[in-house]
Amino acid sequence: MIASHESSTPPAHSERGLPPGLTRLLGTLFGERFTTSAAVCLQHGADESAFAPAPPDAVVFPESTEEVAAAMAACHAHGVPVIPFGVGSSVEDHLLAVHGGVSFDTSRMNRVIDIRPEDLTATVQAGVTREQLNRELASTGFFFSVDPGANASIGGMVATAASGTNTVRYGTMRDNLLSLVVVLADGQVIRTSRRARKSSAGYNLTQIFAGSEGTLGIITEVTVKLHPQPEAIAAAVVNFPDVGSAVSTVIQALQMGVPLARAEMLDALTIKAINAHSRTTLTEAPTLFLEFSGSTAQVKEQGETLRTVVEEHGGGDFQWATRPEERSRLWTPRHHAYFACIQLRPGSRSLTTDACVPISRLADCIAETTADIQASGLLAPVFGHVGDGNFHCLLLVDPDNADEVTAAEELSHRLVHRAIRFDGTCTGEHGVGLHKMPYLEEEHGVATVDVMRRIKRALDPRNIRNPGKVVHL
Amino acid sequence: MIASHESSTPPAHSERGLPPGLTRLLGTLFGERFTTSAAVCLQHGADESAFAPAPPDAVVFPESTEEVAAAMAACHAHGVPVIPFGVGSSVEDHLLAVHGGVSFDTSRMNRVIDIRPEDLTATVQAGVTREQLNRELASTGFFFSVDPGANASIGGMVATAASGTNTVRYGTMRDNLLSLVVVLADGQVIRTSRRARKSSAGYNLTQIFAGSEGTLGIITEVTVKLHPQPEAIAAAVVNFPDVGSAVSTVIQALQMGVPLARAEMLDALTIKAINAHSRTTLTEAPTLFLEFSGSTAQVKEQGETLRTVVEEHGGGDFQWATRPEERSRLWTPRHHAYFACIQLRPGSRSLTTDACVPISRLADCIAETTADIQASGLLAPVFGHVGDGNFHCLLLVDPDNADEVTAAEELSHRLVHRAIRFDGTCTGEHGVGLHKMPYLEEEHGVATVDVMRRIKRALDPRNIRNPGKVVHL
Repeated sequence: MIASHESSTPPAHSERGLPPGLTRLLGTLFGERFTTSAAVCLQHGADESAFAPAPPDAVVFPESTEEVAAAMAACHAHGVPVIPFGVGSSVEDHLLAVHGGVSFDTSRMNRVIDIRPEDLTATVQAGVTREQLNRELASTGFFFSVDPGANASIGGMVATAASGTNTVRYGTMRDNLLSLVVVLADGQVIRTSRRARKSSAGYNLTQIFAGSEGTLGIITEVTVKLHPQPEAIAAAVVNFPDVGSAVSTVIQALQMGVPLARAEMLDALTIKAINAHSRTTLTEAPTLFLEFSGSTAQVKEQGETLRTVVEEHGGGDFQWATRPEERSRLWTPRHHAYFACIQLRPGSRSLTTDACVPISRLADCIAETTADIQASGLLAPVFGHVGDGNFHCLLLVDPDNADEVTAAEELSHRLVHRAIRFDGTCTGEHGVGLHKMPYLEEEHGVATVDVMRRIKRALDPRNIRNPGKVVHL
Repeated sequence: MIASHESSTPPAHSERGLPPGLTRLLGTLFGERFTTSAAVCLQHGADESAFAPAPPDAVVFPESTEEVAAAMAACHAHGVPVIPFGVGSSVEDHLLAVHGGVSFDTSRMNRVIDIRPEDLTATVQAGVTREQLNRELASTGFFFSVDPGANASIGGMVATAASGTNTVRYGTMRDNLLSLVVVLADGQVIRTSRRARKSSAGYNLTQIFAGSEGTLGIITEVTVKLHPQPEAIAAAVVNFPDVGSAVSTVIQALQMGVPLARAEMLDALTIKAINAHSRTTLTEAPTLFLEFSGSTAQVKEQGETLRTVVEEHGGGDFQWATRPEERSRLWTPRHHAYFACIQLRPGSRSLTTDACVPISRLADCIAETTADIQASGLLAPVFGHVGDGNFHCLLLVDPDNADEVTAAEELSHRLVHRAIRFDGTCTGEHGVGLHKMPYLEEEHGVATVDVMRRIKRALDPRNIRNPGKVVHL
């Protein structure tokens, strides 16, 4: 397996299991919801990445902010690391307990606390998943927009500053946040903001904890913005002669102000994987999955505008779907693309890249990357949220083949340099975790990363909140 | 005049003018762009608020990030406060040099550095005003959306997390930011982010400096998002029998998903002030100023939807304007509302409130506040960005009448409590400055404000960046 944590800082505790006093205390607090079972710990020290797990010493399953606070205070008193765990869908090793400690599994914090359609807001416990929230919203006429593909926990989506397929229209997780309840490193509980749609009342703590990956505290409650369900939605699939034409179509549509609800590009290899996995018969060519929404008239108008742009770029005919079950049939394979791709090569793991560049540079960045993939001999489907300038390569490797792993890591390394050269970022939506840490200084500059380090020190002076992630102290 | 700075922390320097070494150094660095002229200092120690000026000891007029950095490093070495100055349109005393020091006037940092329509971004020096940027964008087909009324500097708009009339459609200044160049307290220069549309690469420093009101560093360059100019824009004015009906109309439209471009409510007194100031003949009743944009068909459709909602709430006929000069004639009086209202009472100053609440509570919050104004006997026009839940009362006082000033302060105080009781904020868009500081703990809680304080200490350990504002150390 791929070693994943050579370079981390020294641990804050002994890494030989928890102090007996803490074990007793957590046992008393959580009863059967505290475990040191090797199997449970192993499951909580792994994620969707290609890298070797690093299990925590114990796992707790809190049900409330108060329980998180009590357990955090206890871990703080003992100098023991804490790693929050949502559903385990990270691809950047956020969950690996590289310095041991306690994993806080939020799956029992699954209560939708408050839905306020009249304010377009909902407040949930951090462990609520996006699909659960949208089920509970179904009858209200409103929905929660952020859709990273995986049925992630909303707390996890905040912690990694996730986004996904409809960011182009509705924004990222950061854009859809109003307020957080956070348990600080020492167990104190704060609420970052009130529920007004905007505020200038002091430093924006909501946005500091969003994307902090558990390194500054644990998010226990999230208030999100809701959006009215559009009157009409239409989905369309359209093929292109090459990836560049597909990308340019979306960029031009955005520059024209077409409010695309979704605009996903999948390369021919991804379509091949989807056909094999979902038993579809999509044409194995670079493809756009598009979604339009609004009033019936708006959807029609957007579709007509897009058709003109698609034709200019040599795209084919639209395959349309408007009824919910048809749209679902069209989009479900896209949502399964990640798992479909991994099954292109049974037994493989994916080293997943996440470059994001200014949209005018996206076609060039993908073209250079595709050439690099071809030269490398790696099997690597490419797809992306092209309206955001963000794309993923799934570098499918045999985790036991060191040469292949090295080749994938080198390719990923070159892609990050390329993205930064284009004034982009090493990670558009997956987060830093362990493996993007080496790039932060190149991307932001030494002094900028030092400011991040100062904030980390100010909020977690003992370096025991997901230590070894995002920034080294 | 109203005293404004009794409660601030002790100064970091002597407050008896600048140290001679610093005076010499700034003189060498800036030549004639450094001054200790009493008149210039007085002008830079005042703003649009009702409170007494507090002039700095000197003013510099830097032209570049490098000059700001050199001067900041010098002030840091001498422990001298620094206060950034944009155009002086603050209403919350951000600019008052309550501990003396040097005002950094950014008006010569007025270069539009880079317009990239292909990426929907523009990069400007902090002193560029929003009108200047939009003039330079006029031929590109894109525009910068944030419009706080005043022709503020973009750096100032970032520093106060400003918003304004089209936030309901395009978001606040925070929502329209991609990246900042910031000179830290000690003179180090950082760039907070690259130019991709989204990123998860570490802590969100862009959003920490946005809204930090000069207390963490000086913003010298700003990269903003641009929006395509819509094909069609229509403006409309419509009267209502009461303020509540006007507010409810907008809230219902938002809940229905109508993408209003602007939705401003002005009460009858504000309309009276506008008529007097702009020689218009608007009906002196609660009024909505609305703007619709999109394709011609969309604008028509939105207008028809709104007409239905307006009728349900007892509103009158629409007065429409579609051609640019007509729209300008309709909207210009709204943009001059602030100054028109002040002239309702010659010689008065305005104590301007800025409550913002969840939208379903807005009608109640305004109703209670209007009753409170009537009971107080103060002259106070009310208008607001009702789609955001944000409204302003201009409490017009004779600054030399202590009883009146006290009555206005008490009314403002009650309004803040009311907004917080409705889960809202003491400031939707004006910022904390000096006068909202006492409310932050009530709004956010003691532990939350302590986190802000820890961030302030981490980034400005000597407390010399706009000291005495936002949080006390």
